[in-house]
Amino acid sequence: MTTARRPVPQFLQSKIMSAEDAASLVENGATVGMSGFTGSGYPKAVPLALAARIEERHAQGEKFRIKIWSGASTGPELDGALAKADGIDFRLPYNSDPIARERINKGEMKYFDMHLSQVAPMAWQGFLGKLDTAIVEISGITPEGDLIPSSSIGNNKTWLECADKIILELNSWQSEHLDGMHDIYYGTALPPARRAIPLIKPDDRIGQSHFKVDPSKIVAIVETDTPDRNAPFAKPDKTALDIAGHLLEFLTHELKMGRMPKELLPLQSGVGNVTNAVLAGLLDSPFENMTAFTEVIQDGMLDMLDAGKLRMASATAFSLSPEAAEKFNAEAHRYRDKLILRPQEISNHPELVRRLGCIAMNGLIEADIYGNVNSTHVMGSRIQNGIGGSGDFARNAFVSIFMTPSTAKGGAISAIVPMASHVDHINQDVQVIVTEQGLADLRGLDPKQKAELIIKKCAHPAYRDMLRDYYERAKKSSFGGHAPHDLREALSWHQRFIDTGSMK
Amino acid sequence: MTTARRPVPQFLQSKIMSAEDAASLVENGATVGMSGFTGSGYPKAVPLALAARIEERHAQGEKFRIKIWSGASTGPELDGALAKADGIDFRLPYNSDPIARERINKGEMKYFDMHLSQVAPMAWQGFLGKLDTAIVEISGITPEGDLIPSSSIGNNKTWLECADKIILELNSWQSEHLDGMHDIYYGTALPPARRAIPLIKPDDRIGQSHFKVDPSKIVAIVETDTPDRNAPFAKPDKTALDIAGHLLEFLTHELKMGRMPKELLPLQSGVGNVTNAVLAGLLDSPFENMTAFTEVIQDGMLDMLDAGKLRMASATAFSLSPEAAEKFNAEAHRYRDKLILRPQEISNHPELVRRLGCIAMNGLIEADIYGNVNSTHVMGSRIQNGIGGSGDFARNAFVSIFMTPSTAKGGAISAIVPMASHVDHINQDVQVIVTEQGLADLRGLDPKQKAELIIKKCAHPAYRDMLRDYYERAKKSSFGGHAPHDLREALSWHQRFIDTGSMK
Repeated sequence: MTTARRPVPQFLQSKIMSAEDAASLVENGATVGMSGFTGSGYPKAVPLALAARIEERHAQGEKFRIKIWSGASTGPELDGALAKADGIDFRLPYNSDPIARERINKGEMKYFDMHLSQVAPMAWQGFLGKLDTAIVEISGITPEGDLIPSSSIGNNKTWLECADKIILELNSWQSEHLDGMHDIYYGTALPPARRAIPLIKPDDRIGQSHFKVDPSKIVAIVETDTPDRNAPFAKPDKTALDIAGHLLEFLTHELKMGRMPKELLPLQSGVGNVTNAVLAGLLDSPFENMTAFTEVIQDGMLDMLDAGKLRMASATAFSLSPEAAEKFNAEAHRYRDKLILRPQEISNHPELVRRLGCIAMNGLIEADIYGNVNSTHVMGSRIQNGIGGSGDFARNAFVSIFMTPSTAKGGAISAIVPMASHVDHINQDVQVIVTEQGLADLRGLDPKQKAELIIKKCAHPAYRDMLRDYYERAKKSSFGGHAPHDLREALSWHQRFIDTGSMK
Repeated sequence: MTTARRPVPQFLQSKIMSAEDAASLVENGATVGMSGFTGSGYPKAVPLALAARIEERHAQGEKFRIKIWSGASTGPELDGALAKADGIDFRLPYNSDPIARERINKGEMKYFDMHLSQVAPMAWQGFLGKLDTAIVEISGITPEGDLIPSSSIGNNKTWLECADKIILELNSWQSEHLDGMHDIYYGTALPPARRAIPLIKPDDRIGQSHFKVDPSKIVAIVETDTPDRNAPFAKPDKTALDIAGHLLEFLTHELKMGRMPKELLPLQSGVGNVTNAVLAGLLDSPFENMTAFTEVIQDGMLDMLDAGKLRMASATAFSLSPEAAEKFNAEAHRYRDKLILRPQEISNHPELVRRLGCIAMNGLIEADIYGNVNSTHVMGSRIQNGIGGSGDFARNAFVSIFMTPSTAKGGAISAIVPMASHVDHINQDVQVIVTEQGLADLRGLDPKQKAELIIKKCAHPAYRDMLRDYYERAKKSSFGGHAPHDLREALSWHQRFIDTGSMK
């Protein structure tokens, strides 16, 4: 180990054991609540050991598969290793692991893709069954036995409360200065006992810094010193910069029209190269004292904090590049009063997203000419990652923006299609679509006005005439004229891609 | 007039005028906020006079069209008459008028179909433009000049606040005992000034009984004595009773499993013959002291109140049969402490629907084998009514139930199809589907498990094998295997109906 081990209180020291011994406490058929959100704060040793154990059992001809509940995506040591071992029978919610994705798309693994805000409340509802074991990464244990969360919170509060048995991974790679950054709200309940969530600003603290835990449920503590799955920073290319440019222009226009305050409204954004360009653009924007109320804190937000443009950010997890993670760990104390990590039922709560009036900025796979968005299923059937929190934010945002390059696969796929082959975000929840070609402000428009604007502003020139051609012919042959479609052709672009490798 | 005229304070008496004079105050191109929700509380005289005025102008070769914002559907004297006169350029939100529907589907009238909870906040956001005139039905005026609402509230608070000019219809047909039944919350705001809505039980009163109004904006008061568009009670047929039976069995099972309290959770339901059967079924159920937090109060809810099964109901409007309306008007005082009418931004507020944990029960046009629901567009393009409040409730409910007969048009249309031709409710927001054939509890299931269950439990026997055949072949040919589809055939049932008049 390269960093000092974290202290474990005397009364819990007997629970310290190896990852292998801890993994032996998980049985075939168990339902396991894992920590982890967007590649941070997930357990890294026990799932690997469990995958080895499962492979061993499989080699002996025995069955061994588990059900996994997580926060969102985790890392290769968890979803990757367990999926490789064919050890996952069922998983919820969001997955981005490529091996698990293949299993799901081959029908070898059940996947329940949920709104992220609903995971904890639905786990409490009971229809998902009993949670046997929680495997949760933490960054420390207080002398009283309370748990200091790690670099993500996700559903950990709920897993720790619901599970019969708790396995902790105490990761000394995580900064000790994370302590104090978390805000764990213990006021949620099932109806009819639900109350208003007492948060009215992104910076309100409404809970406590540490997880409460029943020490008698802790069956293992495994010490680790392993980095999060930190993805390299995706440097914005010209396409991403153009998208960001259009979006910044829109926000600046909204400010000018008096429809947006100078601090903007709390930002929500996904991760990736387009988001990075937007955040970089906001660094040079007229907006000041911005805030974020979002799922993840990425490199660009740290830059905005450093520059004094962002006043604070609230999220449920970090999602940093290795360089930013290193910098953050070295200087975490500087950020402690500017960052708040919350349970994902709070970071994504529809009540709060609507109250705060977030500016939601999400990616997509495709949008159709009427503004319906597919975020999850390539060619209508192949799951990419999952809906994640996009539905929590898009429906409740002050303005819901979807951003995408206008083509994919070197131009073989158009992001604007006649009809979405799967719908995750209905047109009512899609107010703005931006590509490198331009921005379509769809607010207050009729479907046919939307179609004309989306084709004109967002479609790639190589597909613009094809879309116009479809739309004009659909208007003539459609059963109804509100949102005209020719159902014989509506999905033909996708079929052409499947047949020929190109939508052209 | 058959009932006594309602008093008008001295300082407003000069504003009393005929409907024709009031209609002359509305100009070509105006944006008009109309009261009205589900055929109740809409203005009945001025829109008719305005339609006549528009027809006159059109006969003279002049242009005259207005933009209409409403609560939801209104009546033939409003949407019907104005659509017939081709006087509507743009309309939001929900419409159920057949003449307006034809205009929309012919592309002669722009229609912005929104989530009902979002109408008021989006009107305040400003991107919809300025509201020129409010035309609002009321049931009385206090000596101080405050307005006593009518049989619906809808967006009236917002229209009265936003409009430059106000035209009131004072309808003496409405019961005087409505006074005190309303609860108008004046605490909403745009972000960053939004606060928590202080409602934690369906019976909480958080506002005031009367609308505040700036008297200088009142330009006309028109006295009327006209009934609401009360639709005849649709007596449940065997199909509706079977659907209700399956649903009651489900709710009873949830009670037994400890997942639902004995009072259930607040009910939300649409209108129509299936809902009537469900409400009648609840009359004989083991549940006691139920509540409703919903959009409309229909006949069945009055029966449940009379029987003592329903403790109280909160809504934004009545939607009664002529007989029930007569009975209600005669005995309104009996219901005054059991009914609350609220603005639709409150009755449908996602914050409140999620907090209270409503049991959402909505109808549909079609559902696909993976549980995606189309509530609005017949054959993917022809708007029926609109999304209404179904999205507000379905996404935030404790359990979101969709109910439908398994076929329509005498069996020529299957309500369960391979792929929905339009999506309003994504599978994540659809937890239970019920037809007269049976009930599919989709909670926690993978798409392929959902498909098998929906086909088995919900599809009509005449379509079951056809669906199985599609699904099995889709599994073999699909691009991805998460939610298998054969895009060449996915919409072929709809096209067959368009071509031949039957999906078979």
